[in-house]
Amino acid sequence: MSILVLGTVALDSIQTPSGKRTNLLGGSAIHFAMIAKLFTCVSLVSVIGEDFPEDYLYLLRNKNIDLSSLKKEKGSNFKWEVRYEKDLDSAITLKTELGVFSRFIPSISRLQRKIKYVFLANGDPDLQDYLLKKMINPRLICLDSMDYWIKHKRRKLLKLLKNIHVYLANDQEARLLSQEDNLIKAAKTILEFGPQMILIKKAEHGAILFSKGFVFSLPAYPVENVIDPTGAGDAFAGGFMGYLARVDRISPTEVKKAVVYGTIAGSFNIEDFGIERTLNLTLRDFKERLIRFKRIIGF
Amino acid sequence: MSILVLGTVALDSIQTPSGKRTNLLGGSAIHFAMIAKLFTCVSLVSVIGEDFPEDYLYLLRNKNIDLSSLKKEKGSNFKWEVRYEKDLDSAITLKTELGVFSRFIPSISRLQRKIKYVFLANGDPDLQDYLLKKMINPRLICLDSMDYWIKHKRRKLLKLLKNIHVYLANDQEARLLSQEDNLIKAAKTILEFGPQMILIKKAEHGAILFSKGFVFSLPAYPVENVIDPTGAGDAFAGGFMGYLARVDRISPTEVKKAVVYGTIAGSFNIEDFGIERTLNLTLRDFKERLIRFKRIIGF
Repeated sequence: MSILVLGTVALDSIQTPSGKRTNLLGGSAIHFAMIAKLFTCVSLVSVIGEDFPEDYLYLLRNKNIDLSSLKKEKGSNFKWEVRYEKDLDSAITLKTELGVFSRFIPSISRLQRKIKYVFLANGDPDLQDYLLKKMINPRLICLDSMDYWIKHKRRKLLKLLKNIHVYLANDQEARLLSQEDNLIKAAKTILEFGPQMILIKKAEHGAILFSKGFVFSLPAYPVENVIDPTGAGDAFAGGFMGYLARVDRISPTEVKKAVVYGTIAGSFNIEDFGIERTLNLTLRDFKERLIRFKRIIGF
Repeated sequence: MSILVLGTVALDSIQTPSGKRTNLLGGSAIHFAMIAKLFTCVSLVSVIGEDFPEDYLYLLRNKNIDLSSLKKEKGSNFKWEVRYEKDLDSAITLKTELGVFSRFIPSISRLQRKIKYVFLANGDPDLQDYLLKKMINPRLICLDSMDYWIKHKRRKLLKLLKNIHVYLANDQEARLLSQEDNLIKAAKTILEFGPQMILIKKAEHGAILFSKGFVFSLPAYPVENVIDPTGAGDAFAGGFMGYLARVDRISPTEVKKAVVYGTIAGSFNIEDFGIERTLNLTLRDFKERLIRFKRIIGF
């Protein structure tokens, strides 16, 4: 089953202790798609500006990603400048230029409206809701949201959470949304808001998924050389949803395996700048790391 | 096989968002012993002052703990006052009174010198070394140490690490000792210092064990109502060593299982003030939680 993703296609400028890169191909939709495309066909719903490099478009076309709903508009592309400090824990945004994304209104084809797996990457809940309303009977809707929207469009976000299946958050976002310090209490509170599951990504500390029926906790895959954390959460979502779309079954067993695939995806993503590590990944790479991971966590 | 533990027997005064308690029975040796005694006989090597309540001594005697090397000295008992903030992340020490512990010189019996399992709880590396030299051919020596000793007796600690099997640390301590930010690099560096294994306890984020031959990572058991984190690390050590002493086999398989037992021990310890939760625990409680835990982490 294919996946439809709504998110940004960005030009990222990134500083980490390992170095500096300018105008890298990035954005939530891209980090997600680079992983999800390994499992199934991905339709990208986003917008690029006039200054978006042809090379990047060429690259995306060659990666078997459906770009029919990637609009090109007059104006400059979405741009993000970020710096990570020594511990790589938090992203310090130096600049965000929305560019053409500020007036983006997604439009998708009749065929795309029937796609069963939908990822609403972090963004304006109004935009997420707008796209969601276009979808015809989706089977799995996953939604990501960040502190900005939790603070500024809380009511809209809460309304949206009633209509989705999996809410993806990091631990701080889960705490902020639920107003609970304890992560388990936070997750329970958020489940009451409406989503069927909440998947909390804790970066180097792993991930924990809560549903009304079960809890699943997993450590991270240990990565020794973290180069750039940008997009790890979206790559995680790409592994999680990619796996589920491929097996096309949302049972507890498959959901748990999907969290494992998400974890592996995130671990690859952070091993190089931008999408440099994920760009040429294969499912074989996934399976090899999965075997190593099972040895690390099995007892 | 029995275990010998060198550590503090303290009177703890604890403030957490859940409440306040004064002069609770605590200390590293106590938190450790409350768990380890479920698996095997524990010999306590420590000192108490004249003000140590008779009730507590009575309680310990009734818990089948060998107190023959628990000295009583003139002067006041080791006392610790601590406050935890809302997130329970870090202990803010309000007061430490070493009392009789400041001039404590452990002496143990000939029989105790032959005990094969030795836990050197956090303390002065000189004292840890002094006791270690008395032991005759121990099979498993685990050592805990905190930032104070890492900073002030670094050379002595590094020397000691060459002679022990498992170094127990939290993530900050591992980073401090190794001077590496990345936890995996930190662990590898510490392994080069000499211990056969390093077990990094990450509180709510689980634990990760590194040896020269394998890595084992485990999430925490999810605890919804954390009341008091005091002694969780020592309880973890109690579960870890207790299990290994009971099976008396230090293979990778058993070491991994021991980490699981340590994790469960820590999860019980934080559910109430001081040792209130662990005092009357049974191995049956452990096994029940272990079954639940396996459901949460299995896939």
